[in-house]
Amino acid sequence: MVHSFASEAVAPSELRQLLEELYQGRGLSFYSNGQTIQMSSQDIWIVCRGVVLLSTLFPNGDEVLLGLASPSMPFGLPLTSIYSYHATALSDVDLMRLTVAEIEQSPTLSRSLWQHQSRRLRQTEAMLALVGHRRVKERLCQLLSLLKQEIGQPVAEGTRISVKLTHQNLANAIGTTRVTVTRLLGQLREEGWLSIDRNRYIILH
Amino acid sequence: MVHSFASEAVAPSELRQLLEELYQGRGLSFYSNGQTIQMSSQDIWIVCRGVVLLSTLFPNGDEVLLGLASPSMPFGLPLTSIYSYHATALSDVDLMRLTVAEIEQSPTLSRSLWQHQSRRLRQTEAMLALVGHRRVKERLCQLLSLLKQEIGQPVAEGTRISVKLTHQNLANAIGTTRVTVTRLLGQLREEGWLSIDRNRYIILH
Repeated sequence: MVHSFASEAVAPSELRQLLEELYQGRGLSFYSNGQTIQMSSQDIWIVCRGVVLLSTLFPNGDEVLLGLASPSMPFGLPLTSIYSYHATALSDVDLMRLTVAEIEQSPTLSRSLWQHQSRRLRQTEAMLALVGHRRVKERLCQLLSLLKQEIGQPVAEGTRISVKLTHQNLANAIGTTRVTVTRLLGQLREEGWLSIDRNRYIILH
Repeated sequence: MVHSFASEAVAPSELRQLLEELYQGRGLSFYSNGQTIQMSSQDIWIVCRGVVLLSTLFPNGDEVLLGLASPSMPFGLPLTSIYSYHATALSDVDLMRLTVAEIEQSPTLSRSLWQHQSRRLRQTEAMLALVGHRRVKERLCQLLSLLKQEIGQPVAEGTRISVKLTHQNLANAIGTTRVTVTRLLGQLREEGWLSIDRNRYIILH
């Protein structure tokens, strides 16, 4: 279902270089794994290193996974219409803060961000498509393919999902329970689709 | 759950004027209500008039609604990673065709499209958030609020949803059946949330 346009996007290192040239001396903000990222109404964060989990929390306590921002992707309150919107570091992350006004004033920056925002649009749409599958196992397989494409790293045995998502995170993304995800991951492991390495990362075969 | 940033975006008429200046003499493509819009791998369509329904079709025949492109919003194969991607005119529509290269070469155009693509990202994310609600009625109410915000037109009795979405379209957006949508719309009508006007448009009160 999912095909990649990675080759068309500006390489993350190019955007980082561009940002460094445009904003020499502006520091990066560091968040460690698990920390909540502060957001304010005019700021757009650009991921320079690591992966950020974007989610919404319902009044009943349910959390829904809305996206994973990986290097060069923008996120922030000006880019969402969700009222209860949360960003959490899924690894150690470095972020650069820009304002909407800065982006709009810089043609180079807005062109580059247009491309990386397209990546976020494609990812969000792919997540929306996968929740349409009736069978939960199919939803989980589609989610794993999407994660492989978005944040996969090639290793000897296949592709390693480069951040540790909990079974609850995966359940939140596909509208099921943690217990079901644990059971299905066990099945997929027995069927040879995936394995778990010594550091508890998922490897897709 | 959904709040609007409409005031921050470039007004649709501004983008249209910009496009006309940039591409004087380039014709618009017209599609009538219900027609399938042709897409090719390098083309990005900009909606100049009307509303386009974006969806994906699963091998089992299920359709999932992925978005509604309203005036100034871009859509097309370069902006999606979904393999089976369909665009259908939901009203009479005028579209302008651009290529990725043209957009990347024009700073004015990429800045303007960055803003309208942000609107699509916000909409897609809002659709993703609403499918997380456990109760189908809650999902339908959230969808109607989103439609009100995206394509609502003020009328004397409230806000009219400016295109006719079938009960099946609404069902496809919230992962339920047409029969359930028909029943729930009946309930919402009895409860005074909405009415249907003489031309079969939904009016939200």
